[in-house]
Amino acid sequence: MRAAPDLSVYLITDESQCRSRGRDVLDTVEAAVDGGVTCVQLRAKGADGGLFLTQVLEVAEVVGDQVPVIVNDRVDIFLAARDQGAPVAGVHLGQSDLPAHIARRLLGEAAYLGLSAATPDELRTAQEQGACDHVGIGVVHPTATKADAPKSLGVNGVARMAALTDLPAVAIGGITASDLPALRAGGLAGAAVVSAICMAEDPRSVAADLHRAWDEGGRR
Amino acid sequence: MRAAPDLSVYLITDESQCRSRGRDVLDTVEAAVDGGVTCVQLRAKGADGGLFLTQVLEVAEVVGDQVPVIVNDRVDIFLAARDQGAPVAGVHLGQSDLPAHIARRLLGEAAYLGLSAATPDELRTAQEQGACDHVGIGVVHPTATKADAPKSLGVNGVARMAALTDLPAVAIGGITASDLPALRAGGLAGAAVVSAICMAEDPRSVAADLHRAWDEGGRR
Repeated sequence: MRAAPDLSVYLITDESQCRSRGRDVLDTVEAAVDGGVTCVQLRAKGADGGLFLTQVLEVAEVVGDQVPVIVNDRVDIFLAARDQGAPVAGVHLGQSDLPAHIARRLLGEAAYLGLSAATPDELRTAQEQGACDHVGIGVVHPTATKADAPKSLGVNGVARMAALTDLPAVAIGGITASDLPALRAGGLAGAAVVSAICMAEDPRSVAADLHRAWDEGGRR
Repeated sequence: MRAAPDLSVYLITDESQCRSRGRDVLDTVEAAVDGGVTCVQLRAKGADGGLFLTQVLEVAEVVGDQVPVIVNDRVDIFLAARDQGAPVAGVHLGQSDLPAHIARRLLGEAAYLGLSAATPDELRTAQEQGACDHVGIGVVHPTATKADAPKSLGVNGVARMAALTDLPAVAIGGITASDLPALRAGGLAGAAVVSAICMAEDPRSVAADLHRAWDEGGRR
């Protein structure tokens, strides 16, 4: 069986946000992992495969032995990185990417697979197919990161959605540290952030804040 | 060994061009194959993986037993289609996509692999690595299809480039039927077209014209 990674403080990268703060993705990830991020998903929608592979290899080399490194969307980039010996953990898919049950066949059983799900139907299908290891549910708050993001559910709405599935669920969408205690208390397995860290003046300290806030939810 | 497909009249699809003529990609491909296209590459840069896989499966089901169907860029979409039993022949990569020698490892030896090469250095590397089965060389004429296309070489320039490699070479870039006799006489293995067919009023008759023009080059 696959090891269940610690999804609690889950960074998803956005290269243009990192660059707007004068950092590249690797700098941002290193600082965030140092601060307490427990999982890193590299997202580079529309990027050329060669550049994306280079980024995945670089990040996995630096932090892949400390936290799971997940590749967004591109199953082939994950397979290529794994083939090159990089410590990559798995893939995350959206509903419009390769179908999860087909991706699972290409990935094999050892890779970790996450799947975004925004409706009860999508959650049910995710669980019934048995292909993915966790679901991403959102959005919690309105967000500018994804132009096509579904309508916001709020912390309580996301917690209600998470209760519909037996799969570990990670909340996403405009999340900041103040949301984490309630998300954890609401049964979520983690909280995914993009701009909170990628746009931060100090990604390390924001990651540490998120980590503390998650711990606080466990003491409720 | 892999069978060497007939690359002589090589269609590369562009969905927005097809749609501008009121057709979808599948309609265009069917008409073009009926007219005499010998090879079809499906290109959908930036498209979501799920939609691209659907298109690949549809096209392969309809024409995959008549002509080789090649998937642009996305090794994972090719692997997924093959896993689903679709008659797909291989993958075409650009210089900024996954490196060809890594793609070959993921594809296995049975898949056909093409690689774009625009300089003598790129041609030499392609041949030395031994990963790809043919090279695409261009551009012949200025073209609006790719914003980042290299400078145009003309028919003679492309033929000179093709002479630098032992790999079969397919010319690309703003090609119309009038170029084909000279390209064939110049030693090219084929001519790839996008807009000549995708923007045509009648893709079947343009494909037939291209086929005739290629035959004409063989009688010189």
